[in-house]
Amino acid sequence: MTNYKMTISYDGGRYKGWQRLGNGDSSIQGKIENVLTEMAGEEIQIIGCSRTDAGVHAIEQIANVKLNLKMNELEIKDYLNKYLPNDISVLKVEEVHERFHARYNAKEKTYLYKIWNEKHTNPFMRKYSMHIEEKLDVTKMKEAAKHFLGSHDFTAYSNAKSKKKSMVREIHSITIEKEDGYIHIRVKGDGFLYNMVRKIIGTLIEVGLKKIQPQQIPAIIQSKERVQTGPMAEAGGLHLEKIKL
Amino acid sequence: MTNYKMTISYDGGRYKGWQRLGNGDSSIQGKIENVLTEMAGEEIQIIGCSRTDAGVHAIEQIANVKLNLKMNELEIKDYLNKYLPNDISVLKVEEVHERFHARYNAKEKTYLYKIWNEKHTNPFMRKYSMHIEEKLDVTKMKEAAKHFLGSHDFTAYSNAKSKKKSMVREIHSITIEKEDGYIHIRVKGDGFLYNMVRKIIGTLIEVGLKKIQPQQIPAIIQSKERVQTGPMAEAGGLHLEKIKL
Repeated sequence: MTNYKMTISYDGGRYKGWQRLGNGDSSIQGKIENVLTEMAGEEIQIIGCSRTDAGVHAIEQIANVKLNLKMNELEIKDYLNKYLPNDISVLKVEEVHERFHARYNAKEKTYLYKIWNEKHTNPFMRKYSMHIEEKLDVTKMKEAAKHFLGSHDFTAYSNAKSKKKSMVREIHSITIEKEDGYIHIRVKGDGFLYNMVRKIIGTLIEVGLKKIQPQQIPAIIQSKERVQTGPMAEAGGLHLEKIKL
Repeated sequence: MTNYKMTISYDGGRYKGWQRLGNGDSSIQGKIENVLTEMAGEEIQIIGCSRTDAGVHAIEQIANVKLNLKMNELEIKDYLNKYLPNDISVLKVEEVHERFHARYNAKEKTYLYKIWNEKHTNPFMRKYSMHIEEKLDVTKMKEAAKHFLGSHDFTAYSNAKSKKKSMVREIHSITIEKEDGYIHIRVKGDGFLYNMVRKIIGTLIEVGLKKIQPQQIPAIIQSKERVQTGPMAEAGGLHLEKIKL
């Protein structure tokens, strides 16, 4: 058995997310597993680093898979790209140590959120950014972002169902940049709860629209009450950008 | 009556092109005219600068329209953007001289063609670029491009049906740039025949793949025979980028 690390990019627009559901045709994991199963002639399961939500994109997702085949890295990559739909692309396949595990080995994940902040729509980015007509107050958003940094119990900022697992996550940095009509928000952390990034971005947008004040955020985090948080930002604007191993 | 110049951007992916057909729902011109007709309460016709083909995009298209309304430029723009689908966006509406005519006043048009020249697909650009796996020889393509410059009878490089109108067009420049996996080809000229840009790009691609030699091009142009030209490049890679008035 050889363990392979795969670097994958996808447009999540027409999928129900990374995680396999049923026959797999509606998930990215499923699409990849189905091609690998066909290639290997036996049931193959892969391990993904991040379970991106329905409609969320990946500039770079990492997964690993154990295979017992006489194909080299390039042949596996080419086979995958030949049979995968063209909204999923395998950028790299590399042999790795047998103990490599895409989820456990991830040290930091970077999510990039794209906002198109102009009055008119952007026809080319309508599926890859959230359109907000009203000018956002980026200074206030940067002030608000600071309150999320460090380790917190993020119960208020997630829709995770389990009440047994730890809700503590550490956010390493949040940067907000204006660039030609866009606002790009990058959130780096050791990991994120279900919907957590989109809920944080949603709150930053509410701050940018002056619906809530930056200084209200610590109390919302401490409350652990989900009703207090703003709406989730749209899935289409979110991109898993980078995974540090 | 006031004459308005409109600057429009669109993702042409789901349209049969700029030019109105039937009820207009399948064309960009038709979509815009339908909204203006609704707004004005009478049948409105607009004049577009370039009749982009089915599936071709516009970063910047220019059109003009005569209206007899008590609305200002901003109100017209906002009304259009409110009722147009989000793959068509009106960037600007400006009052212009009554004699301004979007087609007759155009001095130069720039078309940008995007090629994604990597082995793997690019999930985010699959509808906005042509994917060519084999590495193109850009040096040869640049050499070939020179043969198209200046005024020529482009009968061989078009699918225009009329045999009465002049087939002479002047190409001002063709630039070819490599950038992070992409090859960007910009073609500037005073105007282009039906399918002409895509047929020229198709030939440049054939040169890049070493299927034909740059020095064969002058004879193909002179032959005025369409059978000698290469296949048309895919519509999705083509973008009307700029119109000089």
